[in-house]
Amino acid sequence: MKPEEIAKFMEENDRVAKTYGMKVKEVKEGYALVELSVNDSMLNAAGVCQGGVIFSLADFAFAVASNSYGNVALATSANINFTKPALKGEKLTAEAKEVNRSRRVGVYEVIVRKEDGTAVALFVGQAYFLDKLICNS
Amino acid sequence: MKPEEIAKFMEENDRVAKTYGMKVKEVKEGYALVELSVNDSMLNAAGVCQGGVIFSLADFAFAVASNSYGNVALATSANINFTKPALKGEKLTAEAKEVNRSRRVGVYEVIVRKEDGTAVALFVGQAYFLDKLICNS
Amino acid sequence: MKPEEIAKFMEENDRVAKTYGMKVKEVKEGYALVELSVNDSMLNAAGVCQGGVIFSLADFAFAVASNSYGNVALATSANINFTKPALKGEKLTAEAKEVNRSRRVGVYEVIVRKEDGTAVALFVGQAYFLDKLICNS
Amino acid sequence: MKPEEIAKFMEENDRVAKTYGMKVKEVKEGYALVELSVNDSMLNAAGVCQGGVIFSLADFAFAVASNSYGNVALATSANINFTKPALKGEKLTAEAKEVNRSRRVGVYEVIVRKEDGTAVALFVGQAYFLDKLICNS
Repeated sequence: MKPEEIAKFMEENDRVAKTYGMKVKEVKEGYALVELSVNDSMLNAAGVCQGGVIFSLADFAFAVASNSYGNVALATSANINFTKPALKGEKLTAEAKEVNRSRRVGVYEVIVRKEDGTAVALFVGQAYFLDKLICNS
Repeated sequence: MKPEEIAKFMEENDRVAKTYGMKVKEVKEGYALVELSVNDSMLNAAGVCQGGVIFSLADFAFAVASNSYGNVALATSANINFTKPALKGEKLTAEAKEVNRSRRVGVYEVIVRKEDGTAVALFVGQAYFLDKLICNS
Repeated sequence: MKPEEIAKFMEENDRVAKTYGMKVKEVKEGYALVELSVNDSMLNAAGVCQGGVIFSLADFAFAVASNSYGNVALATSANINFTKPALKGEKLTAEAKEVNRSRRVGVYEVIVRKEDGTAVALFVGQAYFLDKLICNS
Repeated sequence: MKPEEIAKFMEENDRVAKTYGMKVKEVKEGYALVELSVNDSMLNAAGVCQGGVIFSLADFAFAVASNSYGNVALATSANINFTKPALKGEKLTAEAKEVNRSRRVGVYEVIVRKEDGTAVALFVGQAYFLDKLICNS
């Protein structure tokens, strides 16, 4: 499968990405750009976008980028720094870039931004690659 | 507000916690135990519980524990290690414990477990405390 | 090699542990307790123990615990939260405990404490296990 | 004090940076580039550069960048992913860039590289800013 096919398969079959309306805008080997619009269902008790939603967005971009080569990539760890709150109605993008990839372990950096470029969160994810291939059947 | 009132307010007003059916089973100052049952809506493209959902559960336990004193606590960073996949139908608990709390910064450790005690994830969150009090009005 | 032999080998051959005078006080499979006394050579420009030294202490306890089974364990990622400054003359301990261990990946939590029990730092490390055995020849 | 003066003060008074021979090659507000040559005293039991040394290098670049404005910046948390081993004789650089800075909290990303550009580690540090100014007297 090509990166675009893998991304489409993940977009359609990841239930959280689907529920939140995440859209893969761009994908290539080791790279993904994902979009999400903050709506009512994503707010925490303080009325701003929940940290778990921002993490989910970054994590999905990381998942698409790390699975883009065709081998199943499992997330083993992730770190996130929240820099600014995201508000209802804002459109966010998560851009995942590969920092390093060896046979078994990959490291990806994801920046979540608002439309004006303001950083909402910085995420770093580590993946473990299986020999098993991604398969949509 | 007492820890129980704060927890109840958060449980009812955090839209993600509500959608996922998270239940605060226990709360006291600097501590929270939260439960969630993995259902269809929480699965990723590989058919296991999505990392963002596990993060959201741990993050919510962290939020309840760090807000339990009455001052608004903002999450500034979090780290998560995924140790085992969680499957559809499994009941998970996230137990948040305070490691340290100074006037402005608090550190909380959260372990997400299955019913048999297997660790699904280890989460560490850091909060920044505002002078502002939590208020449900 | 037994855990005690591995620990002794590491204590003697890790140049940083040796320079800083780190002592392995206890070791068993998946566990290590390491001690260090803060001296002049470990201070930062603010006159307190440098973060890199505290990290090195926690990291060494993590290394001993994760290598204790006999297979070479490589550190792939680590996260640290600094909770209190450590001062010149203070004796610190780093206690590493295994959170999870599968064939390839292990997660270890390390708490660095002062003699009165105050937490100085919380460290979480992830290791990748090679098939290769530790060998001191 | 200007960024250059602060960097010089830190370079001279951070005992770990001094022992390891770290050199600040460039500094401006929110940015620092630091160099270190891996020597015998920095090796672990496996004969490659110890993780604590790489962390210390990244942490020092982070410290210089975050203190560059003149206010004392305390490191509250840090995350590091190790991507490639660094070997004896190699010259490493740590480049710290500011991702976000608010009145109290700042987030900095640091990449440690070999001379040929290979990433050795990706570090993310979070700082807490005091009102207190850095003062070398």
